[in-house]
Order: sequence, then C-alpha cells, then structure tokens
Amino acid sequence: MRIAVIGAGAMGSIYGGHLSLNNEVYLVDTNQAIVDHINANGLILQENGEDVIYRPKAVSSTEDLENVDLIILFVKALFSRAALKGNQNLIGQNTYVLTLQNGSGHEDILSEFVKEDHIIIGTTEDNGAVLGAGHVRHGGKGRTNVGMLQEDKEGFLPKLKKAFDSCGFDVLIHENIQQLIWDKLFTNVSLSALTGVLQVDMGFIAANEHAWNLTRRLVHEAAEVAKAMGLSFDEAAILEKVRKTSEGSPNGCTSIRADLRDGRKTEVDTISGSVVRAAKKVNMPVPGHEMIVELVHAMEERPKA
Amino acid sequence: MRIAVIGAGAMGSIYGGHLSLNNEVYLVDTNQAIVDHINANGLILQENGEDVIYRPKAVSSTEDLENVDLIILFVKALFSRAALKGNQNLIGQNTYVLTLQNGSGHEDILSEFVKEDHIIIGTTEDNGAVLGAGHVRHGGKGRTNVGMLQEDKEGFLPKLKKAFDSCGFDVLIHENIQQLIWDKLFTNVSLSALTGVLQVDMGFIAANEHAWNLTRRLVHEAAEVAKAMGLSFDEAAILEKVRKTSEGSPNGCTSIRADLRDGRKTEVDTISGSVVRAAKKVNMPVPGHEMIVELVHAMEERPKA
Repeated sequence: MRIAVIGAGAMGSIYGGHLSLNNEVYLVDTNQAIVDHINANGLILQENGEDVIYRPKAVSSTEDLENVDLIILFVKALFSRAALKGNQNLIGQNTYVLTLQNGSGHEDILSEFVKEDHIIIGTTEDNGAVLGAGHVRHGGKGRTNVGMLQEDKEGFLPKLKKAFDSCGFDVLIHENIQQLIWDKLFTNVSLSALTGVLQVDMGFIAANEHAWNLTRRLVHEAAEVAKAMGLSFDEAAILEKVRKTSEGSPNGCTSIRADLRDGRKTEVDTISGSVVRAAKKVNMPVPGHEMIVELVHAMEERPKA
Repeated sequence: MRIAVIGAGAMGSIYGGHLSLNNEVYLVDTNQAIVDHINANGLILQENGEDVIYRPKAVSSTEDLENVDLIILFVKALFSRAALKGNQNLIGQNTYVLTLQNGSGHEDILSEFVKEDHIIIGTTEDNGAVLGAGHVRHGGKGRTNVGMLQEDKEGFLPKLKKAFDSCGFDVLIHENIQQLIWDKLFTNVSLSALTGVLQVDMGFIAANEHAWNLTRRLVHEAAEVAKAMGLSFDEAAILEKVRKTSEGSPNGCTSIRADLRDGRKTEVDTISGSVVRAAKKVNMPVPGHEMIVELVHAMEERPKA
C-alpha cells in the first residue's frame, strides 16, 4: 500500500516507522531538520527498551509525489486543515484518509478534502513520546480501532487491516466507530478537562464532591449530545468508567494539566471543543463544555509567573 | 437605640465601635477571648493612622439581654442562621434586623427569624481589616446604603439614619435597594469569581479574550435573573462597569483569589451562590454560576502543595 503519514511526532513516527516494513511509506513533516535527520540516520523507535531502526522515506514536501492509497493524519488537530491543504496533490479519487487523532469530529475537516465514503476515523491505544530528533519511545501497544462514516463499499478496511497487522499493529474494524470514539471522549472531556482546570491529580476527581458534581454535569451534557447524534449510552455506566479511571490512577497527571502547568497550549479544542461543535450541529446546549473551553484557553494565556 | 452587632470581625467592630458613641451597643461574638479583651481594653479602631478607643459592651452570650431595636448581622454569611438562632431572644415583635453582608439574598435566612417588614438589607462602602485582638484598621469610609423589602410603615429607616449618621456614618435610604445590591453583585460574580478560578490579577479579565467571554456569560446569566426578579438593568452598561473596574485596578487581587491562593474557604456561596439561589426562585438556568460555585469549592479542597 502507498501510504503518507502526515506529522512526524511520536504517533506519526510509530505508525510511519512500522508501516514501512511492508508498505511504501512517506513520512511527511514541515520540519526540514527532522526530515533530513530521518533520511540520514533512519527513524529510531525505542521498543521494549531497545532501539530499532525503521526506514520510511521522510519528506517535507509532497509536490512531486503521485496520489497515495491512504493518508494518515497525525498532526495536532489545530493543523489538520493546513496539513491536508499543503499535501492536497497526494489525494486522488481513490485516496482514503484516516484520522486517529484525539477527540471527535475530525471528519468535518477531512470532508473538505475527500468524499465521506473515503473517510476513516478511529482511535489508537498505542502511545509514545519524542525522545529527540528521529528518536521516539514506543510505549504501550494496543488496538487500532477504525471505522467508516458510510458503508465500506470497496472493502478497503479489510485491506487496511491486512497492511497494518502485517507490520505489527492490531486493527479492529468497527461497524459503529462513533460509539467507540465517544466512549473514549467522555473520559477526556470530564476527567482530563477538569484535572487541567483544577490542576489536580486524576484521583481528586472521584474523591472530591464538587469535582464529581462537575464531572456529572460534563458527562450528562456530552451524553445528551451523543444521544441526539443517534448514539446509545448509559450515563451511569459512563460515570462508573470515569470513576474507575480516576481511582485507578490516583496520582496520574493528564496532558491538559501538564500543558497548563508548564504554560503550553492544550488540546482542549479537540477534546471539549469537539463536544461544543457536535452540540451545535444537533442544536443542544452545552454551557459546561463551553465554559471549560474558555477557562482552559484563558489559563493558557495567563502571564507567566 | 438599643443595638446588637453580631460578629466582632473587622466590619462588626467598625459599626459596633462607632455606633456605641450615641447608642446602647452590644458587640456579640462567640470568641470569649476577643470579648474579654474588648471589655478589658476597649475596642481600638485605627482611623486615619491613629488608634481611637471605643467602648461597646462585648458579650459572648445574649441570654440575659432584653429585646433590642436593631440587630446588625456581620458574621460570614455561612454562619448567619446559627448567629440568629443563638441570639434569638434579642428578637422581639419590634426588632429590625439589618444585613450589610456581601452578596445577595441574605433576606431569605433573616425571614426565618423576623417578619419581612422588619428586614433591612443594604451595602456598605466602608472597609477594614483585623490587626489583632480588639484592634481593627478602619480603611476606606463611604456610604451605608439601606432599604427595606417592604414599605417602611413605621418610619424606622429615618430613625436608623439619624442614629448612624450621628456616629460618623453616611446612611442613604433607597426605595429600590435590590437594584443597588445587584448592581454591586454583577462585578463580584464575574470579575471576582473569575480572578479566583483563573488565579489572575484583576486586569486580566478585560485584557484576555477568553476571560472576557466568560465575564459576558456570567453577567448575562445574572442579568437575566435580575430582570426576572423585576429589576431593570442594561447589560452593556454592566459590562462597561466591569471592564472599567478591571482596567482601573490591573494589579488588584480579589479576596476570592487570595483565599484560594492561600488555601482558605471563600465567600463564593454568598457571591455566585446567591445568583444560583435567586435563579432557582425565578426558574432560570444559570449553568455558568453553578459551574463557578463547584469549581471554587473544588479548588478550596485541593490538597495543599
């Protein structure tokens, strides 16, 4: 399969590296230094404590390339539109685009570039962290959950699964992928968002009465939106899962919390913001999530101490 | 006039001290050490840089006292009910109760103890700070705004004004005191609440786009409640006032912010919480203020760093 992975961060490197074992892979990044480094030294993934070299072709421009079979988008959601626009000539009539980005609703931007029946959305349980230029730690490994917005008429997903699984991934094809995406989203828009705004460990959310009241409100609003979208959720079950996540990692630090603590931009627009955008489409009020988005952005822009 | 001032904090001491010049004043506090100290040494107010001694009678119990003409409640709103209950035998058929506490809606608790036509509510522009036992700095001086929930049939307010003004206060009687109370409340429930949650200086609120979006939401919700209560406000004018307050004290630190920073309980239930309670009565949604109350309480209960 001819595959372009856009974004050579931790996740892009993990997928681009592994997929290059059995596919023609282009790892696209606007950072020329990273691109040169990877082409000169290979892409090094630290896996089970050992450095393994992979050889995807890194490029900073795709101007001279032909259409690919699959584009995997691994830039920050904020840059999705720019990334697809900048690499538009990779996209032909038969090109599929896959997003495994955090949050929900990424299909909205993808649909500006490909037809709905060529959009694949999903989640990944793999994770990693950038250690240096062209050097990424491949942490936990898990499933890659994928699904389509419409019926998979051309039978592309089984081909994708074969191409991925032969490179060490574990792809699961879902009939109702939105259900799975929202299932993951509920924890992010309550637990992650609140640990950020309150600057607390994950355990505080289930342990503190007021934090839990806020959690219930945020989950309720999001669940109402999901129901209006035609998904089916049991609010009590969602809350139980959030509680277990909080209690299971009492000292855990979410990325929104870490980003705010260290004065970085967060992914809140992708997380809570995606609930706000979904709510607008189904005409539901989500004042709690609107407040969270504004609070987090305000905190991002606080003067440095 | 026979007056009982309940609560010998900064404001109770300022009113109790001054009013004792021309009235029979009992300064009531549950802290026996403070009571003994005041009775032994007098109540010392630092005014214009000089210590002035006042001689109200301090008591920790009012069991042996007869009904008074006026009770002034200066405890934290959290303790209003307990304070009135504990001093119930001061209250007779002709006793008026005055609250100048921060926030709104204190009349709800007062009405459990006296008839509506004996409740006086208002605001004070005086301020002060406790320096030590029986020693209080009397900072800014200003108006004491008062008004009644119902018509002042017995003409009590003019008598109150005379008694207060003769002791150095500047009482202004208002026909529509709720209007004035809410006018002050709008700034507290937006600017003060947000500087607390965001832990920022006052200037940040008008200067930051997201903080200002939150301000507009909170003012809008509160203004809708005020309108449903029959008050009349121009939202644009309120926002202009909040903006000026923010820009006028860019480095100002609100008490909610200081309390949260220093790990103390805040007055949020009196401030934002009073909008939530008022909203319930007029059946209006105020999700923004509900969120603020829960966020502040959660922040109060964060583990100490």
